[in-house]
Amino acid sequence: MLNTANTQEQLQARVRIVLVDTSHAGNIGAAARAMKNMGLVRLYLVTPKQFPHADATARASGADDVLARATVCATLDEALAGCSLVMGASARLRNLSVPLLAPRQCATKALSEITETGIECALVFGREHSGLTNDELGRCHHLVNIPTNPEYSSLNLAAAVQVLSYELRMATLSEQTGVVSDVDVEPLASAEDMERFYVHLQQTLETIGFLDPKNPRIMMQRLRRLFNRARPNEVEMNILRGILTMTQKAGHQSDPE
Amino acid sequence: MLNTANTQEQLQARVRIVLVDTSHAGNIGAAARAMKNMGLVRLYLVTPKQFPHADATARASGADDVLARATVCATLDEALAGCSLVMGASARLRNLSVPLLAPRQCATKALSEITETGIECALVFGREHSGLTNDELGRCHHLVNIPTNPEYSSLNLAAAVQVLSYELRMATLSEQTGVVSDVDVEPLASAEDMERFYVHLQQTLETIGFLDPKNPRIMMQRLRRLFNRARPNEVEMNILRGILTMTQKAGHQSDPE
Repeated sequence: MLNTANTQEQLQARVRIVLVDTSHAGNIGAAARAMKNMGLVRLYLVTPKQFPHADATARASGADDVLARATVCATLDEALAGCSLVMGASARLRNLSVPLLAPRQCATKALSEITETGIECALVFGREHSGLTNDELGRCHHLVNIPTNPEYSSLNLAAAVQVLSYELRMATLSEQTGVVSDVDVEPLASAEDMERFYVHLQQTLETIGFLDPKNPRIMMQRLRRLFNRARPNEVEMNILRGILTMTQKAGHQSDPE
Repeated sequence: MLNTANTQEQLQARVRIVLVDTSHAGNIGAAARAMKNMGLVRLYLVTPKQFPHADATARASGADDVLARATVCATLDEALAGCSLVMGASARLRNLSVPLLAPRQCATKALSEITETGIECALVFGREHSGLTNDELGRCHHLVNIPTNPEYSSLNLAAAVQVLSYELRMATLSEQTGVVSDVDVEPLASAEDMERFYVHLQQTLETIGFLDPKNPRIMMQRLRRLFNRARPNEVEMNILRGILTMTQKAGHQSDPE
């Protein structure tokens, strides 16, 4: 049984809501209000079209402190720095092999990882009209789908933030948060470690001639999905990097002089 | 076990959302959108300040049909006509002898009464700033409290509609396990494929000099854990095998003659 007050503090400290490329400042304000209502405070904005903005402040109502403390980032990677669990909201049931969770599962998973391993978690929301790009989804360990009416599935951005924040709060308040975790006891690789690994992986695959340097994207996206699903810990990450280094050496030695 | 399609139809036909004395037309539109996203269509407006209104239409986005079909009423009693289950949203934990429910309980209760006895149900939401009066609460069989952050509990009206509509939809869908599936659409690699991969991986790591051929066990066990966790599908397995083959070529070319 967890201590609820303490769990809520951990949720506040370790969950960030990341909004990518938001067009309407009003949605940022409404998202801040939804967050604060549910006890969340850390808002990250990746290249918002307008911020700060009067519409954001108006819609935030009493949650203007969340706006004032918001971190504006130039890239998604910057917003994810330090996070070991990244979950992306996805309106479509994509034909991807990224694990797809319902909001309640998402909340339970985030909470159990946060309280048991002390990691930081990011919930990422895409553009109002087009969501997250495949590249951005490639940063996510899990996708979260809010099961909307299939005939009208375009959830407002702040409404999506509301639903996931609400489920996080409900998970905190629920007495049965002691879900058995499948998380390794060793610390997980951070988002930055993962990005460095993918750079190294791509270079190595080019060195051995596996990857077409002109068109590496689709292959790298597939590999991202595979390794994101595995969620390597730090030790495993060192092993993978070691393998890449040795592979590059083998590849370079075979280069024609 | 309920028939989900049929349950959703009953929900559409027998649940009404009642907004009392709404000040901001934008909130009416946002509430309509939240409803339709969650499969609800019957909106009742008791003495709205402004309706119809451009702000309502703008915020409704594609849910303007819900607005067009909305019933404007002069009194709450008129809006509740024909309902046998009335639930009122209440921000405060009032000292009243009306049973207080959490949103999830509210949804389960509404759904079971609707499907088992065929009654109609109303969810009633009060004014933006002051909620429902005691008289209005006196019409409710139950009060529903969304458990917000006690330090900031003023939920936006449409956000409250969103949360309760979401819980109703989740209650409907929960009859179907695996609403959102995390099962890969591509067939997973078989156990035999995995074993062939591990043999190939071990040979390759020996070729590039990463693995001590005399003592490969601990390293291979770690790598097994990592790749078993990822559960590669058949396409991913082919990619991994392709990478190993190219790595071996690079390694062999660099062998001293």
